[in-house]
Amino acid sequence: MYKEKILIGTDTTSGVAPQILDAIAEASNIKTLPYGNDIITEKCKNVVKKIFEKSDLEIIPMVSGTASNSLALSSFLRSYGSVICHSDAHINKDEGGAPEFFSCGGKLLTISNSLGRIKAQDLLNKIDEISFKRKSRPLISGVSITQLAENGTFYKLDEIDAISEICKKNNLYLHMDGARFSNALVSQELISPAEATWKVGVDCLSLGATKNGAMAAELIIFFNKTLASEAQNLIKQTGHVLSKTRFVSAQLNAWFKDDLWLELAKLANKNALYLRNQLSEFKEFKILYPTQGNEVFVKMSNLSYENILRLNIIPNLWNQFDTDHLVVRFVTSFETTKCQIDKIIERLKTYF
Amino acid sequence: MYKEKILIGTDTTSGVAPQILDAIAEASNIKTLPYGNDIITEKCKNVVKKIFEKSDLEIIPMVSGTASNSLALSSFLRSYGSVICHSDAHINKDEGGAPEFFSCGGKLLTISNSLGRIKAQDLLNKIDEISFKRKSRPLISGVSITQLAENGTFYKLDEIDAISEICKKNNLYLHMDGARFSNALVSQELISPAEATWKVGVDCLSLGATKNGAMAAELIIFFNKTLASEAQNLIKQTGHVLSKTRFVSAQLNAWFKDDLWLELAKLANKNALYLRNQLSEFKEFKILYPTQGNEVFVKMSNLSYENILRLNIIPNLWNQFDTDHLVVRFVTSFETTKCQIDKIIERLKTYF
Amino acid sequence: MYKEKILIGTDTTSGVAPQILDAIAEASNIKTLPYGNDIITEKCKNVVKKIFEKSDLEIIPMVSGTASNSLALSSFLRSYGSVICHSDAHINKDEGGAPEFFSCGGKLLTISNSLGRIKAQDLLNKIDEISFKRKSRPLISGVSITQLAENGTFYKLDEIDAISEICKKNNLYLHMDGARFSNALVSQELISPAEATWKVGVDCLSLGATKNGAMAAELIIFFNKTLASEAQNLIKQTGHVLSKTRFVSAQLNAWFKDDLWLELAKLANKNALYLRNQLSEFKEFKILYPTQGNEVFVKMSNLSYENILRLNIIPNLWNQFDTDHLVVRFVTSFETTKCQIDKIIERLKTYF
Amino acid sequence: MYKEKILIGTDTTSGVAPQILDAIAEASNIKTLPYGNDIITEKCKNVVKKIFEKSDLEIIPMVSGTASNSLALSSFLRSYGSVICHSDAHINKDEGGAPEFFSCGGKLLTISNSLGRIKAQDLLNKIDEISFKRKSRPLISGVSITQLAENGTFYKLDEIDAISEICKKNNLYLHMDGARFSNALVSQELISPAEATWKVGVDCLSLGATKNGAMAAELIIFFNKTLASEAQNLIKQTGHVLSKTRFVSAQLNAWFKDDLWLELAKLANKNALYLRNQLSEFKEFKILYPTQGNEVFVKMSNLSYENILRLNIIPNLWNQFDTDHLVVRFVTSFETTKCQIDKIIERLKTYF
Repeated sequence: MYKEKILIGTDTTSGVAPQILDAIAEASNIKTLPYGNDIITEKCKNVVKKIFEKSDLEIIPMVSGTASNSLALSSFLRSYGSVICHSDAHINKDEGGAPEFFSCGGKLLTISNSLGRIKAQDLLNKIDEISFKRKSRPLISGVSITQLAENGTFYKLDEIDAISEICKKNNLYLHMDGARFSNALVSQELISPAEATWKVGVDCLSLGATKNGAMAAELIIFFNKTLASEAQNLIKQTGHVLSKTRFVSAQLNAWFKDDLWLELAKLANKNALYLRNQLSEFKEFKILYPTQGNEVFVKMSNLSYENILRLNIIPNLWNQFDTDHLVVRFVTSFETTKCQIDKIIERLKTYF
Repeated sequence: MYKEKILIGTDTTSGVAPQILDAIAEASNIKTLPYGNDIITEKCKNVVKKIFEKSDLEIIPMVSGTASNSLALSSFLRSYGSVICHSDAHINKDEGGAPEFFSCGGKLLTISNSLGRIKAQDLLNKIDEISFKRKSRPLISGVSITQLAENGTFYKLDEIDAISEICKKNNLYLHMDGARFSNALVSQELISPAEATWKVGVDCLSLGATKNGAMAAELIIFFNKTLASEAQNLIKQTGHVLSKTRFVSAQLNAWFKDDLWLELAKLANKNALYLRNQLSEFKEFKILYPTQGNEVFVKMSNLSYENILRLNIIPNLWNQFDTDHLVVRFVTSFETTKCQIDKIIERLKTYF
Repeated sequence: MYKEKILIGTDTTSGVAPQILDAIAEASNIKTLPYGNDIITEKCKNVVKKIFEKSDLEIIPMVSGTASNSLALSSFLRSYGSVICHSDAHINKDEGGAPEFFSCGGKLLTISNSLGRIKAQDLLNKIDEISFKRKSRPLISGVSITQLAENGTFYKLDEIDAISEICKKNNLYLHMDGARFSNALVSQELISPAEATWKVGVDCLSLGATKNGAMAAELIIFFNKTLASEAQNLIKQTGHVLSKTRFVSAQLNAWFKDDLWLELAKLANKNALYLRNQLSEFKEFKILYPTQGNEVFVKMSNLSYENILRLNIIPNLWNQFDTDHLVVRFVTSFETTKCQIDKIIERLKTYF
Repeated sequence: MYKEKILIGTDTTSGVAPQILDAIAEASNIKTLPYGNDIITEKCKNVVKKIFEKSDLEIIPMVSGTASNSLALSSFLRSYGSVICHSDAHINKDEGGAPEFFSCGGKLLTISNSLGRIKAQDLLNKIDEISFKRKSRPLISGVSITQLAENGTFYKLDEIDAISEICKKNNLYLHMDGARFSNALVSQELISPAEATWKVGVDCLSLGATKNGAMAAELIIFFNKTLASEAQNLIKQTGHVLSKTRFVSAQLNAWFKDDLWLELAKLANKNALYLRNQLSEFKEFKILYPTQGNEVFVKMSNLSYENILRLNIIPNLWNQFDTDHLVVRFVTSFETTKCQIDKIIERLKTYF
């Protein structure tokens, strides 16, 4: 039996990039005011403005992706309101009801499809369905899309554009859950952070660094500044203001510096493609969806999955496909190496 | 004018103890499951059991003190319930309504006195007042005390004992906000963590490490295990589960190791006493309250305060005493040095 | 053009049964304590115990059906929990997010099917789907069924039995929204109120009288008494305790007296069947679903609907069937007369 | 012993004025749309506009006073906000935490004084105290005053004026809990409803009819129309939209018709004064506060209170005065008669 357990099911098992560890240690030497009124956070704001080519934006450094999404949504979602999202969205399936709690009962209205992303037509239909007869109850407040989508694919610019057109026409805000935004960004060549967000109508972005090299660092970016005050009012009340916020901002500054965030994402994505290619050689595995970030989804029999576990390879059990088959997720991170993947493949070959 | 700004108003301006920085770096090399299902968190649990001499307790590692208090309270506070606390309590004055939000409308019933701590008789009176005629509305669910109290003094064991007696008789839970618990503990000689908490009837403790050497690390300890499940249910929904929880637990493990937490607290306390003695030499300053931890409260004229700021010394403006006088707080941390205090005194002497 | 507008879209346009009006006037002469501590409410409790053949139950008189459902659900639904219901359920589509608000963010998990009622197999699948991988998040707290279902059909006893079996096995509570419970009950011959509820495992029933003869009177009946205290705690906090509660109880007592509730329901149901038969004569109309209460659903073209409105007949626009067709609801009440229906048919014949 | 129990502790034990009962019966004959979209509610709106001499106002008919207050407050109170009120205010002491629940955690900041009403200087001090150092946390959103105040006295116009001046300067909304507004109004000669409310800066009024002749009828009047939409959004979600709203509006229309509301209030007030005069003859009783409405507060020994109960007279146990004395409340209603009061006095004379 293989002694070493290989965790390949999520990028949250990864460690912290050395540049970010250094930045944390360095921030410890700087004495500054607590609760975000510090020069490191001030610098972070300027960095973000530059990277996203927008001078009138607001940021909130966070440590939790769930809270980052919920606070962003609560900037426009009230208890009697609703947000339209894909049924597979993290906010709908994996955040323990946080958006509902932060909004004291706001509702998520979901769109299901096999694409894994909201299509403009789906959105139109949903709005029609809700509006029919109900006279705006539940009030639809906004739309949330996930970039990378939960199935590891990215929204193309024109897809987002079409969605944001509909939002504008219906007075809806557009939120982007960017837990893996950097992975999506580097997959689309020659697209800038600005082009990928506010230039196609995104009002606020929950940008995640934790899965891609940070220890615990997320960022809410309000391109629509008027939205920020509501979230800023709620952040203290939900316990998400850290006294030593400078250590969060320090992580982010290091993450952005010299395009580290993009470099780390490229590493993860490259290895995901390599892993995909290797896995596709096994006839027992059927690869699902394009691999447009750092995630590979594989359909396999229940038995195959059990055998993988026996090889001490730990992917993520994603979904049931049918009675006999499962969808299993493999996720690479900036730390994943070609060598590690080769080791996985080697083990698989002993069985399959 | 003095160029260097001396921040002496709060211990949250401090950095991170080197042993804790090392532990963070080390944790980065350990690959383990996310969301608290990791060996470092498992170890933390065992460490806490040993230090608090209790095998049947539950812990939740946190990064925010406000959330740590609110989640602990929400384990027994429902929307229609209430918690009795001192009117100066952090949960009442400084947490932006977090206990009310986490409990969806639970109420804090406050006791005011000049002592800064709840006295047993105060508590009895409050319970009587609420119970009179109202037939248990609002339902009183528990009591929260702060150790160090907000005025820098500690509850003696027999004070807590008397409070917990009343709690037991009235079926109330007893929570302790221990943001500066270590400072209080080392001030009372020969008292163990167990004696200071569950042995005098404390049901749950929000233990803070952030103000005393950690980067962002708090711990909810449920001595009463039955309370833990409610908080564990809410923690995800309030966005307080970190994916890389191991970095929080790693800080805590280093903090507890070789009594580091107590040593750091002793340093802070020692320097607070030194600062108090020095400040008491100035006739313009009147020291308030005993200094039983790392905080010194000084009554001074509005003008004196302005002049201190002009000397580029930044204490914390605590309260208004009367029209002409203020209460100003000085807080030392594990990083404060005698030399730094001497520098403060030197500057003060140039003016006062 | 027809001058008189005929409202036939909902039973809530109906007035109050004379016996109930008399009871209101009579209650005005009885001086008694407010807030439900009165002899009329006490009598109501005894009446309910007798009718439902159960001595250990709790009741809460209400005036709002939405609140009655939400309070009943909140007796077991917490913010981090969820309730499974049909996607067409009133609590999901027509109550403005009340269950989510009362539970501070609890979630409704919906089952969609063309039957309009939850099937045992649907429920099993849903529980499996939620339980898969997610490790009980969201915690499933209970199931809510609607009797009459929203499409005007009733759950047969064995259907409820099968659902409650699953509930018991999975530790789920079973709630019944009985806004039109009386209409369902009298449709099923020889079934007693007890057999229709707690004897098949219903834990609590939101029983509506408003649609069937009362002015504003609903009743939460907790067959499972342990559930009542949570709702009793919340009722004041949600503003649903009336000072002059005796006027609500008085309505209910008159409603139950001499089987008035059943007689009124029979009248409504009889006329619904008559209306159905008449409508089925028109080839432009297609009757949907069995008529097992007081509701008739008709599929018709968009144009037909417009023409009905032109005849000053006002049914309820229920749903979109497809681009060209609508589902239109006709609802009779205890006040509806054969003569009134004949008038509707007469008008329809002038056009169709 | 006296067999007949005389309830004199609250006006909520009263019945319904005959004119209002008639209006209810009459409304039963009018078929109209549910949920407030009816002609009776439309008429109510016009009546209110005329009586309050203001054409741009919004109304919401309600059945619960607690909900009426909470919904009015929620129009400007968010979870992170606060409302300043007197510590004796009904919203603070007697509504089970409803304002906190409706606002998902909003805070009531209380002013205590022996006057029973907020004085302008108290308000200024409170605002200063909150604003000091805390930088607007909790955000102060508004002020709520009670007319009649809880101790049975009314705010004079210039008192309200001074409060509303402060509100305007600090961007605070002003709410009036008018559960006994009519009693206060008729006590102040020659003051119109408009002068008593919006002309002195009241933004919204929770106007109660239930204690003064109605069965269950309250009215939120938004003089500041921009506030109405938030409450209108929440009303469905909190279960306070009645399907047969017309029966609430019908009560209100009858209540307003031919100044019935004022006539009923005058009856209650007149008898309160008569009762006060009679009670003041007993040397064991000390009357507290001016009697400016329908409430008389009496300080008496614990023993006296017990003896009153033995005489089968049931006033309201209001408060503890000191160890040996209680404050006991007597409340008259429109139904109280001179004869009834004489009977009370007669009984008292047998003992005292």
